[in-house]
Amino acid sequence: MAIGVTQRLARLVAETRWEDLPGPVRHEGVRSFVNWLGCAVGGAPHPGVAAAARAAMAFGGAPAASLLGMRRRADPMAAALVNGVASHVLDFDDTHDGTLIHPSAPVLSAALALAEARGASGAELLAAFLLGVEVACRVGMAVSPAHYDAGWHITGTAGAIGAGAAAARLLGLDAGRTAWAIGLAASQPVGLRVHFGSMAKSFHPGRAAQNGIMAALLAAEGFDAAPDAIEGRRGFAEVLSSAFAPERIEAGLGEAWEIMRNTYKPFACGLVIHPVIDLCLQLRARPGFAVEDVARVRLRVHPLVLDLTGKTEPTNGLEGKFSIFHAAAVALLDGAGGEAEFADARVRAGDVVALRRRVEAVVDQACGRTEAEVVLQLRDGRELRAATATPLGSLANPMSDAALGAKFLGLATPVLGAEAARLLDDAWRLPAQDDLRWIAARA
Amino acid sequence: MAIGVTQRLARLVAETRWEDLPGPVRHEGVRSFVNWLGCAVGGAPHPGVAAAARAAMAFGGAPAASLLGMRRRADPMAAALVNGVASHVLDFDDTHDGTLIHPSAPVLSAALALAEARGASGAELLAAFLLGVEVACRVGMAVSPAHYDAGWHITGTAGAIGAGAAAARLLGLDAGRTAWAIGLAASQPVGLRVHFGSMAKSFHPGRAAQNGIMAALLAAEGFDAAPDAIEGRRGFAEVLSSAFAPERIEAGLGEAWEIMRNTYKPFACGLVIHPVIDLCLQLRARPGFAVEDVARVRLRVHPLVLDLTGKTEPTNGLEGKFSIFHAAAVALLDGAGGEAEFADARVRAGDVVALRRRVEAVVDQACGRTEAEVVLQLRDGRELRAATATPLGSLANPMSDAALGAKFLGLATPVLGAEAARLLDDAWRLPAQDDLRWIAARA
Repeated sequence: MAIGVTQRLARLVAETRWEDLPGPVRHEGVRSFVNWLGCAVGGAPHPGVAAAARAAMAFGGAPAASLLGMRRRADPMAAALVNGVASHVLDFDDTHDGTLIHPSAPVLSAALALAEARGASGAELLAAFLLGVEVACRVGMAVSPAHYDAGWHITGTAGAIGAGAAAARLLGLDAGRTAWAIGLAASQPVGLRVHFGSMAKSFHPGRAAQNGIMAALLAAEGFDAAPDAIEGRRGFAEVLSSAFAPERIEAGLGEAWEIMRNTYKPFACGLVIHPVIDLCLQLRARPGFAVEDVARVRLRVHPLVLDLTGKTEPTNGLEGKFSIFHAAAVALLDGAGGEAEFADARVRAGDVVALRRRVEAVVDQACGRTEAEVVLQLRDGRELRAATATPLGSLANPMSDAALGAKFLGLATPVLGAEAARLLDDAWRLPAQDDLRWIAARA
Repeated sequence: MAIGVTQRLARLVAETRWEDLPGPVRHEGVRSFVNWLGCAVGGAPHPGVAAAARAAMAFGGAPAASLLGMRRRADPMAAALVNGVASHVLDFDDTHDGTLIHPSAPVLSAALALAEARGASGAELLAAFLLGVEVACRVGMAVSPAHYDAGWHITGTAGAIGAGAAAARLLGLDAGRTAWAIGLAASQPVGLRVHFGSMAKSFHPGRAAQNGIMAALLAAEGFDAAPDAIEGRRGFAEVLSSAFAPERIEAGLGEAWEIMRNTYKPFACGLVIHPVIDLCLQLRARPGFAVEDVARVRLRVHPLVLDLTGKTEPTNGLEGKFSIFHAAAVALLDGAGGEAEFADARVRAGDVVALRRRVEAVVDQACGRTEAEVVLQLRDGRELRAATATPLGSLANPMSDAALGAKFLGLATPVLGAEAARLLDDAWRLPAQDDLRWIAARA
């Protein structure tokens, strides 16, 4: 009898050796780790993170894992929630190109907390993370796009399964128990999209991380579950999706690694805005450009851009992230699209508001999802034009290691000061680290 | 603007006073509490409960709540999981007549753990439980039967929402924060039916209880959520059900109480078997009956009976619970249908096997779900007949308080010895109890 995808994934998680993970795969894992760590540290001051920490620690146990960016420790279950919330709350974390999963928030939040508590090495953490991402993304691919379209926040559903796989790996479970962990995690999907726009959105990856740990702890204790929880009758795929393509789980499993399709945001806002910001920065860098020469800004964009980010008069930072008009204006003025450019004060600043009102956007049905054109009409009648289908941060035009480092420092330095640079150095050397104590010491 | 059902439920939970709960509603709540407590104590020795306790306490905090039947305490989050598993693992807990929700396992497991930790009174616990049941069952009714039919274990989905409501009540949240708690709980549905037949089934109410507590703790800390998580676009009803009847949430809310439709199992097996056991016990009680006179046993049953419990040669206790043939035989022989009659040894006993092989069942498409007929063909050619459409334990023929007490003692005495009777006395006086310390002392 052919074995089902639940068992195939479990075997991959239990049986893959460190040596089986190719160098580029390991390196992409480290890049994801650096990006996630920066997002979590940078997100830590958000009031939702403090609220989550108080709730998670209300009945919590002995401190054994880091609350990133808070210079505190908590029990691993609490840390998984808090770091999951913190790393997603700025909407600045990674995105798997095939599924819209933000894989690191659920998977690394589970894996790091458990790895710290168990005294794991950097390589052990990295392997668990890579295998958890593989499970999350392949399960997600098999139910995409129907599952997300139905209203599930896939980061908290497939993410919980990936977190369970990563936790099972760190606990050293065999394939049979890993399948139980995957099944128990699949029975705890988190995340209705009705919550987008509230703190509950970032709760989803945090709770998914906890669900993965809980699933693996139970499986480790012999608490059993269906052996076919993903593909079985009334299992995850049937219940949570109107379509299921199990061959997307099986094709190239153990050969082609989904981490290679992970992408990182150069700009602190929704992905649909990124092509326009990238183009504004390119135009601004042209010789002789002066922002005061700009009379009008014309954007040609994909239909989703105005659906999702069509707010013409944003009044605070969060609304600014949903305004293509603000994003274009502030990028032309400030030459950046980071958290600072989406701060409340910047969204309300006179120069930004004045330029924003001269931005117009036209939807082009023929425009691809990563495609845009920006035309600057200058006061002297000239036009400056730029177009892209591969904006910075897309799979075809990834951020460099140096750019990821700069992003990390931009997020972490305001929170950790000079320690941020040392944390970054240590993070790049993750595979060589014998332990993870430097995280608690620095973050 | 009309307020939505999420806000209506939140108001009910936050604003109902103890005096608003009618006497019969309170009493039915106490009956549910007694039934649940017996199931939890009786389920405690199951190996899945010990496994759940080890997993839940791995990173747990200070002991403040009872692990029922284990004479131990744990942090309230751990206790909610363990008691949720224990109270459902025997499949002997309550069933809401309209939805197939087992309401006490998720709602009371959350409420008791939190109530013990906060030093709540019996009346405070009872009010929180009744309001939580109301929320769980009404949300469940609004998505029934499509939601369960789709493959969701409704006890862990609607149950989590009810647990969140009960926890919010015990934390004293206002209506706005109660709505966040309901919304955060709705975003954590637990339970795929693929897991039926494994330990993971009883994990569902346990995790649902924890999810409710987590949701309420977060809401109490100001962690916000969508205000319309049940009925909103991409909310619970839309994402988890193909049909939604919000009027079933609104009709008679605060007037007609769903606890009045709660039912309790007299027999330790699936509800579909109950009519046959009830009839066998009736026939056995007739004057002059002697089991050795029985040549054949003929059953006329609803089609689901053979679908679900058609196992002709069960080999252990669990399989015995899925054999209508074993159930009829052992009821005629032993005059009961409790845990003892579904023990491994009894399922394999020679007298039971011999009689079981003389039981035949015929499906009658015209038979109602609670309907059955049993015909005993005696060796002398006579026939004894009995039929029912309202078996003991059904809504129309409920177990008496005395029968619930006897069920409790049958479950709890093997675990707690003589303390079981004192625990039962205290449990019946729940509304008058100033605190809940007697639970930890006795259970």
